[in-house]
Amino acid sequence: MEGDPTLRLRVFDLNCWAIRYLSKRRQERIRLIGDMLRQEDFDLVLLQEVWSERDYSDLKVKLEGCYPFPHYFRSGVIGSGLCVFSRFPILDTLLYQYSLNGYPYMLQHGDWFCGKFAGSLGARQVLAWKLASLLPCSHQLHAEYCREKDAYLPHRLVQAWELAQFIRHTSKAADVVLLGGDLNMHPEDVGIRLLRGWTGLRDAFAEATHFEGCEDGCTLVPNNCFTDKSELLPFPLGIRIDYILYKAISSFMVKCEELKTTTGSAPGMDLPFSDHEAVMATLHIQRQGQAVGATLATAKPVLADVVTEARTEVGMGLQAAQRQRYSSGRMALLALLLLLLQAMAALGALAGLDAGQPFPKLSFCLLAFLAIGILLLATGLHLFHTMEVKMLHSTEEQMRMVLRMLQERP
Amino acid sequence: MEGDPTLRLRVFDLNCWAIRYLSKRRQERIRLIGDMLRQEDFDLVLLQEVWSERDYSDLKVKLEGCYPFPHYFRSGVIGSGLCVFSRFPILDTLLYQYSLNGYPYMLQHGDWFCGKFAGSLGARQVLAWKLASLLPCSHQLHAEYCREKDAYLPHRLVQAWELAQFIRHTSKAADVVLLGGDLNMHPEDVGIRLLRGWTGLRDAFAEATHFEGCEDGCTLVPNNCFTDKSELLPFPLGIRIDYILYKAISSFMVKCEELKTTTGSAPGMDLPFSDHEAVMATLHIQRQGQAVGATLATAKPVLADVVTEARTEVGMGLQAAQRQRYSSGRMALLALLLLLLQAMAALGALAGLDAGQPFPKLSFCLLAFLAIGILLLATGLHLFHTMEVKMLHSTEEQMRMVLRMLQERP
Repeated sequence: MEGDPTLRLRVFDLNCWAIRYLSKRRQERIRLIGDMLRQEDFDLVLLQEVWSERDYSDLKVKLEGCYPFPHYFRSGVIGSGLCVFSRFPILDTLLYQYSLNGYPYMLQHGDWFCGKFAGSLGARQVLAWKLASLLPCSHQLHAEYCREKDAYLPHRLVQAWELAQFIRHTSKAADVVLLGGDLNMHPEDVGIRLLRGWTGLRDAFAEATHFEGCEDGCTLVPNNCFTDKSELLPFPLGIRIDYILYKAISSFMVKCEELKTTTGSAPGMDLPFSDHEAVMATLHIQRQGQAVGATLATAKPVLADVVTEARTEVGMGLQAAQRQRYSSGRMALLALLLLLLQAMAALGALAGLDAGQPFPKLSFCLLAFLAIGILLLATGLHLFHTMEVKMLHSTEEQMRMVLRMLQERP
Repeated sequence: MEGDPTLRLRVFDLNCWAIRYLSKRRQERIRLIGDMLRQEDFDLVLLQEVWSERDYSDLKVKLEGCYPFPHYFRSGVIGSGLCVFSRFPILDTLLYQYSLNGYPYMLQHGDWFCGKFAGSLGARQVLAWKLASLLPCSHQLHAEYCREKDAYLPHRLVQAWELAQFIRHTSKAADVVLLGGDLNMHPEDVGIRLLRGWTGLRDAFAEATHFEGCEDGCTLVPNNCFTDKSELLPFPLGIRIDYILYKAISSFMVKCEELKTTTGSAPGMDLPFSDHEAVMATLHIQRQGQAVGATLATAKPVLADVVTEARTEVGMGLQAAQRQRYSSGRMALLALLLLLLQAMAALGALAGLDAGQPFPKLSFCLLAFLAIGILLLATGLHLFHTMEVKMLHSTEEQMRMVLRMLQERP
């Protein structure tokens, strides 16, 4: 960065809502996204919910000329859905899987199956400047299905905490850290305050000198023909859950010059890119004379309050998980007892040489299968909730450690 | 580090083999390990296979006075088994889960169930010196059960690769990086050459000025009363699979002054600490006048050869996984077909008003349950192998990217 002391970086972020067989007009929208990206001159494109590798391949072929460095984060049965297209060489990639991500038996929500991930990559700016490491994360947290009684809040807080820890650990030598994605959290939610406070990331919407797009920067708006209007009833303007966050480390300074969102449909078309609005930021990165030590964006007492609030929520989630672990364990025990009783009855019948078979064979057999089914299911649930308890406990402990540190050090 | 320019760091590493109900004389050995650690003045203690949290708590209580900063990495149903005791404050912790870890149906090996992890922590030396960040990883890779026909080699290579990537991403701002653990790989194995080559970590055994312990630094020796003698028949001296690796980044220099291993039993006792030998290193850390850029420990052409070798193995694993995915898919399809046939027969019988029931009801019912069982199992396997294919493919692709980079840049 010696020839020209500033770098203008254009970042594009979108939750593409590209689920095969389920998302409406998927292929058409993916084509539209590809066409637009080819026309515009972004430097970094962060996409989420590109669940089909074929969609990624189509985009890759189309964007080869203008974004020569693409990366798809492969993982899980269905994949991570995360991909990045970059004008700069991608030097390194790392994928981090959250330890908790909803419940396998909540089939209607399905978050558990498409395990949520944070992807990180090291890229290098190689134009006229000396290198500036970039660390963009394209990422998504567990969805919120009911704001009043949000059963997933503790899981989302664990994810926000793990994401913050992942960023802290992997970004120490970067000059600039970027995080873009659908975080499934409103700006004032405890999870986002925790993430921002603990990493020092700044919100491009709040910092932008110039903004253009949906009111309040909303990214899930009633104007969009694909959004569920009933879900947005309490929020007439829509909600903001897609973010571009950034910070500079060491001797760099970042400013958000401009932030834009799409407004319910692709520019000049009547079809939106997705059910989410795209977020586009123009950042100015400048080398400073002097290296500045890492600072927290939030004052320590405020951060301590946020961590305390998050810890309380995680603690409540822990109690709920312990209750569920207990009841699934009891259910497994009851099923085992029933099986044992049946085995004794069968043995008794055999020993009595078929004298007094109290039950027709078929019903007896069906009952045994039922008991086996319940035993397997309840054991599975018990193991699952045991794991949940461990992870919630571990997060709560880490938060306690951080709180002690925040309170101790002046 | 301005007052005294050098720091002497004593590191202890041991795979404790502390599996509840399975490991022999577990509690006695844990007590012995605790007593020894309290007497010796190590700075960092990295333990693996401490599967029971009660064992950890016992150690924690016993070592409170001399190692005031302990950490247990909680995760999964059984846990990670990893814990650290430190004389220095632990500032931050992060746990990384490998994407592949054996097969759930290989019950006799059980690796899949105790998901293997790499734990990382940032610690700070706060005595008379200025801070030196330490990043110890206590960690373990998938076990090797048959060296001649090692079905787990591709998984172990994926883990070695992921561990190397994890270290590269999380250690950039550390002054000194330490990795201690049971890596389940012989020193000449491709996995360890890959890990060392790609991270630049040095092997304390190879670098030590003074060595004391089992011949060739072996850590699984026939002398130890808990080792399986038949497994060690091809290796009369034993094998070396537990390591302490290190490197200095930025303006520090690390030298291994002394390396010791236990020799089949705890000093002055007839009982070993574990079925593995403990590894103890004394490192000298010195501040250098000038910052040195990160270097690879292995020359680029050699590293390219290692990555190529690993990539070939991963590619072979990928082919095997694709075959297994295909056959489990076929099996699921056949079971589904059988179920459909049965349903048709049942419907036919119902329509014909029980006229020609060709099968006794009980056998018919049992056959249906069998088909359902096979369908579920085969579908589960198919999903599992789909995930395996994705991860192997992703690793192969990353290796290809690195190879291109190694070949391109002078």
